[in-house]
Amino acid sequence: MSTKSTMMNVSLSLPHMVERIGRVFPHVEVVSRMPDKSLHRTNYGRIHRRAKQLASALVNEGIQKSECVATLMWNHYAHLEAYLGIPSTGAVIHTLNLRLSPEDIAYIVNHAEDKILIIDDVLLSMYEQFRDQVSFKKVIVVPLTGDPVDECYTNYEDFIASGDPDFCYPDIDENDPAGMCYTSGTTGRPKGVVYSHRSTALHSMAEAMCDSLAISQHDTVMPVVPMFHANAWGLPYTSVLVGAKQVLPGPFLDAESLLDLYESEQVTLSAGVPTIWMAIKEAREAEPDRWKTAPNMRMAVGGAAIPESLFRAFDKFDMKIIQAWGMTESSPIATLGLLKNNLTDIDEDDQYKYRIKQGVPCPFVEVRIIDDEGQEQPWDGESPGDAELRGPWITGSYHKDEGAEDKFSKDGWLKTGDVCNIDSEGYVKLTDRTKDLVKSGGEWISSVDLENAIMDHPDVIEAAVIAVYHPRWDERPLAVITVKEGRQVTKEDVHLFLKDKFAKIWLPDAVETLEEIPKTSTGKFMKLKLREMYKDWKWS
Amino acid sequence: MSTKSTMMNVSLSLPHMVERIGRVFPHVEVVSRMPDKSLHRTNYGRIHRRAKQLASALVNEGIQKSECVATLMWNHYAHLEAYLGIPSTGAVIHTLNLRLSPEDIAYIVNHAEDKILIIDDVLLSMYEQFRDQVSFKKVIVVPLTGDPVDECYTNYEDFIASGDPDFCYPDIDENDPAGMCYTSGTTGRPKGVVYSHRSTALHSMAEAMCDSLAISQHDTVMPVVPMFHANAWGLPYTSVLVGAKQVLPGPFLDAESLLDLYESEQVTLSAGVPTIWMAIKEAREAEPDRWKTAPNMRMAVGGAAIPESLFRAFDKFDMKIIQAWGMTESSPIATLGLLKNNLTDIDEDDQYKYRIKQGVPCPFVEVRIIDDEGQEQPWDGESPGDAELRGPWITGSYHKDEGAEDKFSKDGWLKTGDVCNIDSEGYVKLTDRTKDLVKSGGEWISSVDLENAIMDHPDVIEAAVIAVYHPRWDERPLAVITVKEGRQVTKEDVHLFLKDKFAKIWLPDAVETLEEIPKTSTGKFMKLKLREMYKDWKWS
Repeated sequence: MSTKSTMMNVSLSLPHMVERIGRVFPHVEVVSRMPDKSLHRTNYGRIHRRAKQLASALVNEGIQKSECVATLMWNHYAHLEAYLGIPSTGAVIHTLNLRLSPEDIAYIVNHAEDKILIIDDVLLSMYEQFRDQVSFKKVIVVPLTGDPVDECYTNYEDFIASGDPDFCYPDIDENDPAGMCYTSGTTGRPKGVVYSHRSTALHSMAEAMCDSLAISQHDTVMPVVPMFHANAWGLPYTSVLVGAKQVLPGPFLDAESLLDLYESEQVTLSAGVPTIWMAIKEAREAEPDRWKTAPNMRMAVGGAAIPESLFRAFDKFDMKIIQAWGMTESSPIATLGLLKNNLTDIDEDDQYKYRIKQGVPCPFVEVRIIDDEGQEQPWDGESPGDAELRGPWITGSYHKDEGAEDKFSKDGWLKTGDVCNIDSEGYVKLTDRTKDLVKSGGEWISSVDLENAIMDHPDVIEAAVIAVYHPRWDERPLAVITVKEGRQVTKEDVHLFLKDKFAKIWLPDAVETLEEIPKTSTGKFMKLKLREMYKDWKWS
Repeated sequence: MSTKSTMMNVSLSLPHMVERIGRVFPHVEVVSRMPDKSLHRTNYGRIHRRAKQLASALVNEGIQKSECVATLMWNHYAHLEAYLGIPSTGAVIHTLNLRLSPEDIAYIVNHAEDKILIIDDVLLSMYEQFRDQVSFKKVIVVPLTGDPVDECYTNYEDFIASGDPDFCYPDIDENDPAGMCYTSGTTGRPKGVVYSHRSTALHSMAEAMCDSLAISQHDTVMPVVPMFHANAWGLPYTSVLVGAKQVLPGPFLDAESLLDLYESEQVTLSAGVPTIWMAIKEAREAEPDRWKTAPNMRMAVGGAAIPESLFRAFDKFDMKIIQAWGMTESSPIATLGLLKNNLTDIDEDDQYKYRIKQGVPCPFVEVRIIDDEGQEQPWDGESPGDAELRGPWITGSYHKDEGAEDKFSKDGWLKTGDVCNIDSEGYVKLTDRTKDLVKSGGEWISSVDLENAIMDHPDVIEAAVIAVYHPRWDERPLAVITVKEGRQVTKEDVHLFLKDKFAKIWLPDAVETLEEIPKTSTGKFMKLKLREMYKDWKWS
């Protein structure tokens, strides 16, 4: 007789997490910034009750297992209730990205076959722009402003009130779908990624591990990254899993509003894309004594590599940047910038060399680097290639299997489209997006490395480097920058600043100053737009 | 078309963890105490390589998936290699408890159908006592002493050397068996619990979460609890998952040897049963300046409730006790003594009231209290009943489905046999083993509460309370104690010491002083033996 596991067959599911906050962490606060800038305060006890009422009301409304309920919302308590309530019915929460065009949103809603929409009242004008192209069974409006809700919609509070707080969860298999998020791809149509209860639970456990984001019950967590962007990097779910206080910034994502909240709620962990942190750095440096943030506050940064100067600037404010790397397809945390034990004793300057990398693979996530010939590259800190991912919270396909042809390897790994190398300590370093590499006279130039080096210049705020056609070299790098008020930075300044760091052939042949660099819906530099702007560029 | 999860189907398995230490944490040390008291030093790079060689050699030997390979070993590097190498083949590591009688070990070996035995050379005399009752295909001897291995056995080093360090792991489903451990039940035959790759991986993630044991890459972990006892509470696996240094104490579990290692290796987390900590407390108090342990060292305690005085004594040494509760059947961590955020501000004396409880349920573990009528009890900190457990790393049966009739509820929860209550904050408090409760005149008296209160007496070292037949009251409590050298503690002393804490009817009617209280193979008071010793007791 062969030996079999005697362990119980118990699913990792969101209802368990919902019940846990109700029973063990009912007093923990959830603070939300409202559209009038006031603060709304509730707690996990009430969130637990209302999430179950929402689940009950959705089931009464006829929502079926695996059907999608869309949200078009900022980060606040009602969105958190939707995060917990919708998947508790066996249905799927589909978070719509309010920064997309009305056409794209309509496409996504129809592609996902969303049945119901839950929307902030302050976002209704956006809905008006695509309502003719979609057909929801019901549109539920969250009255954040307190204004009456038009009769053609359902008031979220009435809807909640109709539900049973003693809702009985259906049986949920851990591989059942729980959440859905479309990629904000710069090419082709957006593609749907569907998270399972299992992937959400495992990702939450991973984020709560000490060498990861180390989220604990003693943290106050504020996702600046929107809840419609890869589940706000999973932070709302992880906070629920461990019972951490949440601060949700609503529509106010300017540096001053964020810093006010960091101070008043003594936020210990925040997360967002680099552009957010650049703005916060500017604000703090402009008024160094204005805000008192929590001691040793952590700030997770992802979405792009960031310059070393930003790490150093924040270290001075006792705000510690943690690099993360991932994408919608990876839930999103794939690597995290832990400083390994054997590196804590090395020279501080050398530590930054590791801290600015994208970190080591999370437990149970595997990363490999594949070159143009399809060969796996050694972990030598140099050999570059496409980074591929595998793991229990990495997507293996797209919704309806569309657009997946070139996104997965033959043996099923996700091709991230990021060019990386891995060093002998296991640190992944992002050098570029595959499509952003500059191919100059047979040599590959990393736009990311150049950008971060230029952003270290004291007068530069932001820098994006793109490849522009060149009759002799095929492509050459062009840098687009924004500079501090009253300052000027010329091509010669940039060359002088970079000359010790790069071979001469890497230096950008032109430096253009803009008022603002165009950004994607998730706050990344929109290189597609930049390439469009400079497509007819004539090299002097 | 209904929405399906697009997540990859990737198993949580031990080979992933083995590869991770090889690639990301090769330099992390593993230190083992040898039988001659010298220290053996290796690292995860070598452990990784040797574990794969062991796996390869086992496969060459013909070991099949789901077959059991037994170990009879102390805590040291080779046992860790077996922990990693055996399950990497798809086979099951079956850790034999060397404190059991030869007859019991033989029974367990035959019941599990173990094919191969890996044994420390210093334990061969134990094997000699049951070899006639078992038939292994091969007995592999670890030459810890350096002495030559008898030709009738296989030398572990030769066996390892025959294996391929580039061993290719077989496909492993996460529900495949990985490890096996027999309960050291005080009644009936030992019963087999089989851990899966999944349960081991999830339990490791849970232990690495911040509000749990918070094991990180920066820790130095020393399991005093044997590796044959519920996988040393999972610590070797968790340490591997996060890349933490391990210190393995070999056969030397006396207070002085342990404290020497704590100091020399600057151990940050240790774990063991209460009797270990009592001995360490005595040693430290006897020579307060002798050992310098790591700042804020954590010590996980499980297996029984412990007295508040022990917490206070260790706090003075900057050694922080963390209460845990669980059993072989629960992998073993089910609850952990996190001090919740809302309790960190309360009076320090009140904090101890929570710290001495067994803690809140781990994420994804559910606990409920069921009374004699089968009713679930409220979380009011009073209503007692049998504690039942459910979760992904809790056993749902026993190997070959034996002896399981009364161990599981109709809806599949594990009946722990522990009498507990749960308070409104979610803290589980162990008040007794079901079979150890004293039933006096219709009232239930908790032996655990009495024991811990008596052990708070400055002259008492250990105290065990048992129920003894009484013609009038049915049962009455009898306390058995050990006292400090040169001291005497009478029944009157105990009554005087306890009178403000308990109703008069709870006070033990007799207090007997012994040289030593008999203990089980896992270091718990052996109440079965005590009841046997006092079965003819005549009340005065």
